Amino acid sequence: MRFASDNSGPVHPDVMKALSEANEGFALPYGNEDITARAVAAVRETFEAPEASVHFVTTGTAANALALATLTRSFDAIFCTPEAHIEEDECNAPEFFTGGAKLTLIESHNALMDARVLEGAIAKLGSVHGPQRGAVSITQVTERGTLYSLDQIAEIAHIADHAHMPLHLDGARFANACNVLGCTAAEMSWKAGVDAVSFGGTKNGLMGVEAVVMFKPEKAWQFELRRKRGGHLMSKNRYLAAQMEAYLSDGLWLDMAALSNAAAHKLATGLKKIQRVRFDYPPQANMLFVAFPRADHMKLHRDGAQYACYGSLEGPPDEMISARLVCDWSMPDHHIKAFLDHFAV
Amino acid sequence: MRFASDNSGPVHPDVMKALSEANEGFALPYGNEDITARAVAAVRETFEAPEASVHFVTTGTAANALALATLTRSFDAIFCTPEAHIEEDECNAPEFFTGGAKLTLIESHNALMDARVLEGAIAKLGSVHGPQRGAVSITQVTERGTLYSLDQIAEIAHIADHAHMPLHLDGARFANACNVLGCTAAEMSWKAGVDAVSFGGTKNGLMGVEAVVMFKPEKAWQFELRRKRGGHLMSKNRYLAAQMEAYLSDGLWLDMAALSNAAAHKLATGLKKIQRVRFDYPPQANMLFVAFPRADHMKLHRDGAQYACYGSLEGPPDEMISARLVCDWSMPDHHIKAFLDHFAV
Amino acid sequence: MRFASDNSGPVHPDVMKALSEANEGFALPYGNEDITARAVAAVRETFEAPEASVHFVTTGTAANALALATLTRSFDAIFCTPEAHIEEDECNAPEFFTGGAKLTLIESHNALMDARVLEGAIAKLGSVHGPQRGAVSITQVTERGTLYSLDQIAEIAHIADHAHMPLHLDGARFANACNVLGCTAAEMSWKAGVDAVSFGGTKNGLMGVEAVVMFKPEKAWQFELRRKRGGHLMSKNRYLAAQMEAYLSDGLWLDMAALSNAAAHKLATGLKKIQRVRFDYPPQANMLFVAFPRADHMKLHRDGAQYACYGSLEGPPDEMISARLVCDWSMPDHHIKAFLDHFAV
Amino acid sequence: MRFASDNSGPVHPDVMKALSEANEGFALPYGNEDITARAVAAVRETFEAPEASVHFVTTGTAANALALATLTRSFDAIFCTPEAHIEEDECNAPEFFTGGAKLTLIESHNALMDARVLEGAIAKLGSVHGPQRGAVSITQVTERGTLYSLDQIAEIAHIADHAHMPLHLDGARFANACNVLGCTAAEMSWKAGVDAVSFGGTKNGLMGVEAVVMFKPEKAWQFELRRKRGGHLMSKNRYLAAQMEAYLSDGLWLDMAALSNAAAHKLATGLKKIQRVRFDYPPQANMLFVAFPRADHMKLHRDGAQYACYGSLEGPPDEMISARLVCDWSMPDHHIKAFLDHFAV
Repeated sequence: MRFASDNSGPVHPDVMKALSEANEGFALPYGNEDITARAVAAVRETFEAPEASVHFVTTGTAANALALATLTRSFDAIFCTPEAHIEEDECNAPEFFTGGAKLTLIESHNALMDARVLEGAIAKLGSVHGPQRGAVSITQVTERGTLYSLDQIAEIAHIADHAHMPLHLDGARFANACNVLGCTAAEMSWKAGVDAVSFGGTKNGLMGVEAVVMFKPEKAWQFELRRKRGGHLMSKNRYLAAQMEAYLSDGLWLDMAALSNAAAHKLATGLKKIQRVRFDYPPQANMLFVAFPRADHMKLHRDGAQYACYGSLEGPPDEMISARLVCDWSMPDHHIKAFLDHFAV
Repeated sequence: MRFASDNSGPVHPDVMKALSEANEGFALPYGNEDITARAVAAVRETFEAPEASVHFVTTGTAANALALATLTRSFDAIFCTPEAHIEEDECNAPEFFTGGAKLTLIESHNALMDARVLEGAIAKLGSVHGPQRGAVSITQVTERGTLYSLDQIAEIAHIADHAHMPLHLDGARFANACNVLGCTAAEMSWKAGVDAVSFGGTKNGLMGVEAVVMFKPEKAWQFELRRKRGGHLMSKNRYLAAQMEAYLSDGLWLDMAALSNAAAHKLATGLKKIQRVRFDYPPQANMLFVAFPRADHMKLHRDGAQYACYGSLEGPPDEMISARLVCDWSMPDHHIKAFLDHFAV
Repeated sequence: MRFASDNSGPVHPDVMKALSEANEGFALPYGNEDITARAVAAVRETFEAPEASVHFVTTGTAANALALATLTRSFDAIFCTPEAHIEEDECNAPEFFTGGAKLTLIESHNALMDARVLEGAIAKLGSVHGPQRGAVSITQVTERGTLYSLDQIAEIAHIADHAHMPLHLDGARFANACNVLGCTAAEMSWKAGVDAVSFGGTKNGLMGVEAVVMFKPEKAWQFELRRKRGGHLMSKNRYLAAQMEAYLSDGLWLDMAALSNAAAHKLATGLKKIQRVRFDYPPQANMLFVAFPRADHMKLHRDGAQYACYGSLEGPPDEMISARLVCDWSMPDHHIKAFLDHFAV
Repeated sequence: MRFASDNSGPVHPDVMKALSEANEGFALPYGNEDITARAVAAVRETFEAPEASVHFVTTGTAANALALATLTRSFDAIFCTPEAHIEEDECNAPEFFTGGAKLTLIESHNALMDARVLEGAIAKLGSVHGPQRGAVSITQVTERGTLYSLDQIAEIAHIADHAHMPLHLDGARFANACNVLGCTAAEMSWKAGVDAVSFGGTKNGLMGVEAVVMFKPEKAWQFELRRKRGGHLMSKNRYLAAQMEAYLSDGLWLDMAALSNAAAHKLATGLKKIQRVRFDYPPQANMLFVAFPRADHMKLHRDGAQYACYGSLEGPPDEMISARLVCDWSMPDHHIKAFLDHFAV
């Protein structure tokens, strides 16, 4: 019962194989070799964006912070939701990399940014006393497992563009979103008005690779400098590139997302049948946010179940406590069955 | 003829094997698993420092910048040589991570910091108008392939300590130095007065892992926070840890250093016999700095030799041009022979 | 009708006189002279804090940002209200000076921080993924002209202290608050648990001086360094000190606050009698937040009245539009009368 | 005998008078009033640069750091001499305001930057591993009291421009240089290729005002934002502007520089006649760098002479010790006479 995170499972065997194959002889460092060139081409092809600038890093925090730093200035505001990973889970990395830009929180519903509130917040800026218009950042799949429709993304993009601000998309679970929406990478990014994507791989079967994709390549060199300055230019870049190349070969990235989404769907279907389980957020991808009585948590905990539990195990057994359950591509059926069985009694 | 860098060769097969073995089932992210615990223990054992704080990152720049940021304050001076990697090759990463500390350059001889000049420079600081006493950072093996003796390290450590400044050692080629000096990791670090080490693995057969080792663990938590904030906390930390564990098993780290040092020694021995080759720095480890006529460079270039060449290929054929030749653990004999053969004619 | 701000009126004649008297002969720069020593002593005496560290700067933004930077670390959260000057009106200065600390907004009522919400927000922090516990910052008089009681300050101080966080008080209108509450500077600061105060003078009759007062002087030297690094160490410090000395002589600071409070009270009393005027916030000190119909705004605007108007002058004449009216020590009666007369018709 | 600094004397009476006159009634804050408009116009007229952007701040460190931050990026190098105020005397302010740009020191002769060395240092930059080409900054009058000829400035400007880098001039003693060279402000700035000037007033009779003048005004708004973010936007800006307006009225700025230069010349002339006085730098403006025996220092010290002494008062009485002697506009003849008389015995 390993529902702690989609970064707790193993790397896909095809990716491991690609790493082995990349481990042959000498290759120039810092990405000046063939594997990197091929991986960059694969990302561009996947996004149908032959001119896009593509940069590999090892963590999502680095991808987000470097992208935002490249897109904004230190005296700017970056608009995001209160649930945003950049706000909640990056220990001030965006503030650090941007040199002190301010994350300005926009009200959300089911973790989806409210476009009207965004519009109002943007309108307030302008004087020398407050921060300036920097960028808008949204997350797809959101941090609560919900999804923007393509129209919703386009609406936010329109508002951002109207204010001459770029739209960044934190796509740590980009593949899961494409799988659910049945859309292409291009449709969920530049065709909807997105300017830059943190295209995640680590939560979807890679060892540790994310690609930052900027559809307006004018700032590519600046990104390279910021990446180096952040200690994120890998000398042996071929090993990042090999992972990404395998990821995008024969649709592996979408296949793995389909697996994790299906596993979460199966778990959700089972949980919906249990009366004492409440869904805090509508389950749409590979993360479920549910609440159930403390007594169940205690039992699960005793049996070694791993998942994020948002409350103390001590207290009245009937009290509802929220939890997050995440499935990765490798989630075995019997984990799901075992989890559901706990509620059967 | 692949002498461009010691980060251009393959990862050692034992390390690849360890990665495969680590790729089993679920493991909690962010280092909360057994492999990380074992790798940390192995580093502590290697350094005979059971209390040391140990942190893994993927690049040497990250290791250096995070260590220095943890040890100093934004209004401090960090003393280093003009050749230091932190000064020359990190695109202002130390300034970035420290929040604007100043790298103050101390005269060097053969890239070794002059202890007397350091002492004088420290003495000048103190008023509110200039930077304060922050840290001293030296590199072993230096960026020019030379080595401090243990006594020389101890002398600098003594000066730093007298001014209440920590001594940081950039050990990107720490293993090579231990191999040459025939000393232990402890002798070349805390026993000589070093407070923090960037213990390199990437240039010595790993895929991309460095360990920051701080012998006074009071700032361990601060380092963790700075690492996260820098986007350098890997969610799948087990894959860094597995490399480090393999590295320190059965002396693999020293074995690989012995191989690269021996290869460079062989190359140096051959080059010394060639009259038109001049050594810019005494060859002591796995990097050679030599100068030879442009005509030789042109011929080598034509035949695909890879190495850093510090001059233009256009100009008088007799002019001496400097070069850097680096050997890694995997350097095949026939590359060395081929290189030397170019001078035979 | 000059209600734009309490920084738009003239400097008090006694302060101008002190500047003239300070302008005699030579004095060592950077505060190494008698006037600075006397002014520091006067601040300590006013706050009944003989050990406090006292530092003069020229702007409130500098005072706040330097104080917060000295009290927190770059990976911390600073808790404040959504209305806080540090959040709204300093163009990211706190983020800049702290090296990227995050302003975390706590719900407020009448611009007063909700102590219970603060407590809950603090409790959520702790993991390496988010910011750490840094400091709490409140403003007295608040940015909406309201006041904390001494008990309310003590309650917040207690919560902050329990979490080992210092409490900073932005006292741009500190004197006005003391005048309203009828308390001493000590009672409204360290006796209530405040650790550091930005003690304002500029909005209360000085040319441009604020004093940062830290009751735990351990970080005094760090503050000095940060002030210099921020370009805020005045070489001719005697001219700041002379203003502060005059300010604290014979209760001038409280006398001026009494004048501005009384003027605002008179204005408020008049406005309360006008049915179409609504008070957005209870008027407690020298700032009023009121709403009245657009038609009145248009008339006032035509006649040259100066005040912050939070809406467009175009639209339905009946629509209520909010405004801020501020009185300084020099506010002439006839301005108040003229303003009220506009509503008489 | 007050030779400690040109910021230790009084403010010129005309400037005090202007402050008094500015202290009339209400004026909109943050520079939105007539005095600021007039002072900006006066600076533009003085520099014959009707389009220049002009910004007032209170310290030279702020002027330099804000100008450099506006002109460069965090991953850049800023070239300056080892003696530069920005390197030696600003406690890392340039690194702070630029977000971590690196000050790269260029060899100097008599504190004048060596143009050839600069050219070579620029040529070395370019790869992603090191900092990029940011800006060149020189000081006129230099920190050792020497001067660049207009041709020398133009030569450096040409080199900077060729590398697409702006040239910044730290003009803390700009007026003194104009007086010595007999040139206009325009000739010593944009006509010689300078892009931005820190135009000093504080060391030349003002209370505390410097103007940053940028001849290419595209970045004016960015400067305003950085100034606010740095806490350097004065709400009562009229009091800075009034000083600057008086400074530029009827040539007061040049008259005061002429006085301080003449005083230093008189002092130098006297000192040249004393055999045991050695000039460390050629005396050209209002600062002298001389060495003389410790015995003289001891006597002067006993009699209360104030000046920077670069050595200990304890030691052999014959040993030569260096000193800096600075004259301001108000330097009385009898101080000079008294100083020289000490050597008469």
